[in-house]
Amino acid sequence: MLRVGIVGASGYSGAELMRLLAAREDVVLEAVTANASAGQPVKALYPALAGIVDLEFRPFDPATFPPVDVAFVALPSGQGMAVMPALLERAAKVIDLGGDFRLKDPALYEQFYRHPHTAPSLLPRAVYGLPELNGAAIRAATLVANPGCYPTSAILGLLPALAAGIVKPEGIVISSVSGISGAGRSASVEMSFAELNENVRAYKVGVHQHVPEIESVLRDGTGAPVTVSFVPHLVPITRGIHTTISAAWTAPVTADELREVYQTFYAAAPFVRVTESFPQIQSVVRTNFCDLHATVDRRVNRVVILSVIDNLVKGAAGQAVQNMNLMCGLPETTGLR
Amino acid sequence: MLRVGIVGASGYSGAELMRLLAAREDVVLEAVTANASAGQPVKALYPALAGIVDLEFRPFDPATFPPVDVAFVALPSGQGMAVMPALLERAAKVIDLGGDFRLKDPALYEQFYRHPHTAPSLLPRAVYGLPELNGAAIRAATLVANPGCYPTSAILGLLPALAAGIVKPEGIVISSVSGISGAGRSASVEMSFAELNENVRAYKVGVHQHVPEIESVLRDGTGAPVTVSFVPHLVPITRGIHTTISAAWTAPVTADELREVYQTFYAAAPFVRVTESFPQIQSVVRTNFCDLHATVDRRVNRVVILSVIDNLVKGAAGQAVQNMNLMCGLPETTGLR
Amino acid sequence: MLRVGIVGASGYSGAELMRLLAAREDVVLEAVTANASAGQPVKALYPALAGIVDLEFRPFDPATFPPVDVAFVALPSGQGMAVMPALLERAAKVIDLGGDFRLKDPALYEQFYRHPHTAPSLLPRAVYGLPELNGAAIRAATLVANPGCYPTSAILGLLPALAAGIVKPEGIVISSVSGISGAGRSASVEMSFAELNENVRAYKVGVHQHVPEIESVLRDGTGAPVTVSFVPHLVPITRGIHTTISAAWTAPVTADELREVYQTFYAAAPFVRVTESFPQIQSVVRTNFCDLHATVDRRVNRVVILSVIDNLVKGAAGQAVQNMNLMCGLPETTGLR
Amino acid sequence: MLRVGIVGASGYSGAELMRLLAAREDVVLEAVTANASAGQPVKALYPALAGIVDLEFRPFDPATFPPVDVAFVALPSGQGMAVMPALLERAAKVIDLGGDFRLKDPALYEQFYRHPHTAPSLLPRAVYGLPELNGAAIRAATLVANPGCYPTSAILGLLPALAAGIVKPEGIVISSVSGISGAGRSASVEMSFAELNENVRAYKVGVHQHVPEIESVLRDGTGAPVTVSFVPHLVPITRGIHTTISAAWTAPVTADELREVYQTFYAAAPFVRVTESFPQIQSVVRTNFCDLHATVDRRVNRVVILSVIDNLVKGAAGQAVQNMNLMCGLPETTGLR
Repeated sequence: MLRVGIVGASGYSGAELMRLLAAREDVVLEAVTANASAGQPVKALYPALAGIVDLEFRPFDPATFPPVDVAFVALPSGQGMAVMPALLERAAKVIDLGGDFRLKDPALYEQFYRHPHTAPSLLPRAVYGLPELNGAAIRAATLVANPGCYPTSAILGLLPALAAGIVKPEGIVISSVSGISGAGRSASVEMSFAELNENVRAYKVGVHQHVPEIESVLRDGTGAPVTVSFVPHLVPITRGIHTTISAAWTAPVTADELREVYQTFYAAAPFVRVTESFPQIQSVVRTNFCDLHATVDRRVNRVVILSVIDNLVKGAAGQAVQNMNLMCGLPETTGLR
Repeated sequence: MLRVGIVGASGYSGAELMRLLAAREDVVLEAVTANASAGQPVKALYPALAGIVDLEFRPFDPATFPPVDVAFVALPSGQGMAVMPALLERAAKVIDLGGDFRLKDPALYEQFYRHPHTAPSLLPRAVYGLPELNGAAIRAATLVANPGCYPTSAILGLLPALAAGIVKPEGIVISSVSGISGAGRSASVEMSFAELNENVRAYKVGVHQHVPEIESVLRDGTGAPVTVSFVPHLVPITRGIHTTISAAWTAPVTADELREVYQTFYAAAPFVRVTESFPQIQSVVRTNFCDLHATVDRRVNRVVILSVIDNLVKGAAGQAVQNMNLMCGLPETTGLR
Repeated sequence: MLRVGIVGASGYSGAELMRLLAAREDVVLEAVTANASAGQPVKALYPALAGIVDLEFRPFDPATFPPVDVAFVALPSGQGMAVMPALLERAAKVIDLGGDFRLKDPALYEQFYRHPHTAPSLLPRAVYGLPELNGAAIRAATLVANPGCYPTSAILGLLPALAAGIVKPEGIVISSVSGISGAGRSASVEMSFAELNENVRAYKVGVHQHVPEIESVLRDGTGAPVTVSFVPHLVPITRGIHTTISAAWTAPVTADELREVYQTFYAAAPFVRVTESFPQIQSVVRTNFCDLHATVDRRVNRVVILSVIDNLVKGAAGQAVQNMNLMCGLPETTGLR
Repeated sequence: MLRVGIVGASGYSGAELMRLLAAREDVVLEAVTANASAGQPVKALYPALAGIVDLEFRPFDPATFPPVDVAFVALPSGQGMAVMPALLERAAKVIDLGGDFRLKDPALYEQFYRHPHTAPSLLPRAVYGLPELNGAAIRAATLVANPGCYPTSAILGLLPALAAGIVKPEGIVISSVSGISGAGRSASVEMSFAELNENVRAYKVGVHQHVPEIESVLRDGTGAPVTVSFVPHLVPITRGIHTTISAAWTAPVTADELREVYQTFYAAAPFVRVTESFPQIQSVVRTNFCDLHATVDRRVNRVVILSVIDNLVKGAAGQAVQNMNLMCGLPETTGLR
């Protein structure tokens, strides 16, 4: 029986973690913390979890946080690194769903997150938790940096083509649209229904904190510098990311050849499906799948890759559980199908 | 008093035309045709127009179509060219909202529309009805090809930067998301609510019939060959297009410099607003505005242009009315503000 | 030229008022106030109004508020009565879109609004601004209490049947669903997109402040006590109210007879359409129409009335403009079609 | 290992059944039939099921339908009774998700379904499959009529109050709103996105085929005649039903007393949650829960009951699986939590 805890459980990623973990018979949820909601039962914030998670949120205090096999941290970026040193003393393994341990370079972190990194000594220990890329390292890790939602969709989409040398690593253009849950659970006019419904808008054009994550993971994964221009957009759906990637090809290629490259690359990946038609968000919502399709725009010598995930599952909580499975020696798909 | 008629009035563009024209006191709507709905009152299909448009749809028959000052054709591509020769004998001026007269080259038409052009002799007479580009020619025209919805957003976004030599004309990447009304009023599982809601998917990647329209209009407008890679997507909203354009810059430029270029270019255009923040679909829904914003992704030497319109207004019926105003010597904004 | 001002213009009703008034050539908008947004241009909050309303929000100060022919008050209930005495000295006529002057009985007000009424001496002067009921009184009024959104839909639906004695005035059951804009523009988790999308929930069951408004207006309008059980719900649309009313019939009646009663009752009302099929919200969005249909559930001796409006137009700003037209001796439909 | 088959598997209820059954290790899915889609792989219609259900739809032919322990019939009403006699020879137990076996009286069936019943001899054998009401009979049944979606929400809401004599059985008013998937998977303009989005409309007022189902099940369950006036509405969500019930009380009662009655009534029901606050659809989507809340509108001597389910789960496929569990002697919740 795995004892687990969630630090920062009151947001959407935390709630999704609770949902996934509560369904398992090999896991016991020891504690869920949330400072602002401390003292409230989980079901007060998430009526969907009534009868499923019968815990109260408590404040995070390392002195009283129960010793666990695995702790998940679902805090906003900046807060994760603050609790991490203490948490690593209470938890055998930690999976951070925030952005604090995804970049190896503290200067790059500061440039994009706009505050200094306060726990740089932990960075070398953190393994980037994309199982399709880093499975072996994750199995051995005690601190995993769970990937960002956009990077998950973009990196899974680009890895096969870059690894095979099919597309040029510079000048890649990525346009993503995300469901609103990706922006977190918060009180603001900007996130209110009437402002987002029947609307689409871009944000953080070129400066999103996921840009250096995409570039550095792809560089480390393929051995060559990668540059991307990334534009995220909000669309009026609750869950899901659709990422459209455009890259110049290095030599003519066909859609059939691409499909074969992608199918071979992900032949052993239980959560990546290379689809025959263009993928759609609806197919992956509430699942840990990433559906992928690569095709060509032959008139202009480019490859177009389409990638969809559920931002709260493969883009957050589901991937975190997948990482927990690997770190604990369980079958990768446990509790995720 | 302008006498007008609409051929193919039962679709969403036709309904929007009826709404815009019925509100005018200087226009009388003489006839609305729709073969499949012939004999039904307009309000049976569009209860919103009850008490506003008290006409019945009738079949299109050139022999009985009333002589009008302006006829609008809102038929699917392929059907517009079939009725056009006869219609031009009944109507002093015609505005075609379909795609049949937008491309000057019948071979290009056949390649992308997948059927031969049957009225090529009319092509030289047709003026591409983008008022911000072709105002003078539109004023003199008797046959106007109203632009496509995606091209309107893309061309308005690219014109200033291309004309000023700020971006390279090759390798431009365009990603658009469109509301569902853009796909027309039709009975299919694919267009049903449950299939499209909480969903996003790309379609016609690289082969959309709007690709040659974008390229040829930009080439004619700027004097240099332009190539674009275009990916359209459907998002679960009823109206609106958001277009994100990424182009390599020819030399470093700042966001401020871009804004000035765009503001100057559109200083006299009543329906283009160069916005200070990123534009959003909600701001232009049910209006004839195109909201535009150009910025830079300086890390990767690219310009990013964001453009939004209502696909049924500036992307169809509103622009058609704007063209009618110009063709008839009326103030450009009549009935559109 | 009518000089008008809006007090509390930064909410959705205020924005809709600005949109409607800015389109008119016989109206000049002298001032828009909003304490929290004072100093900001209107377009900063509402980019849709860029180029249309070129004003800044200013704080409300009776000493500097310009003398106007008509002032609209779009403040939350409780705040309207606070500014009213001073405002009536600056404005020849005032239309209050809030709830402070709709109930004649201050005790009833306190019971449902949960704070005391602070300007009871103004209550006798206020005319309930439902033009279809009180046209003559509105024409003569200097203070109009614009109806609530739910009451507009419910009262217009019930008036003909109650006036004709077709349904019993007790035990009426009203179930309404409302778009989210009805809840106002505010920052709260509860009103955030992810909480409301793909969701429906009831609120304020039996205790909504619109209950006494519906009952007392119907009593005054028909001369007999009326009791209703009212349940409002939120549904994930931006605009619109659909109200379903169930009332026991006093004697058997047919759907045809009902239609005739309703058509006769509203024969002279330019904004009420008695529809042949069941009405739908889409038909009235962004219009000042109320679409109505009455039918029978003969198995159980009941009449069922369906009524739809746009909560921001006929349910707020549009009806306020309709009232302004009447108060100023203009045609009732000016600027509303 | 249970061998199961699905007749009419290509609709939304069929797809949900496949999703639920494919996740179970104690069930093997032997066949899925769908005449119109015969020959197509399941994933062609439902990409979400790629890698999960690797079957092809085949035409239904009793001669080749494999012998199964349990067959589910998810055909439109009218078609289920046509296949039932033959199917009962191939399947040990059958669960019909359509409406053909829910009413015991063929004349009543014909009145509301508008075609004659063709298998009346099977009606006595059919058990109404609402586990919270008929658990014992379901355990012994070989033919179960799975309840309709609206009736599930309405009957579960009314049973405790009627059984306790708290509300009068006549003149009950029920207003429900349903997600669009309840209307099935079909190609029609009426069901297209642009017609349903940002819209609400009632349909089949007073004549819906679920009316006699609600009345007869409640009569059989409580021993007294029950009459209801039922108005269903479509709202723009994919899944979920919210039912609001208004009934006159027989004697004054408090919300607290109601809660206790409801909690006691459903103490042993694993899928009914009596909620402390008003229930919402979001809490039950993709679950087999019915969330219920009863309160009072004391001013008018009425009880108001709010009930939510997922129309495809507790309202169709989930409840069918719950019935299968009971019929096969399995724990009621297997595969449903």
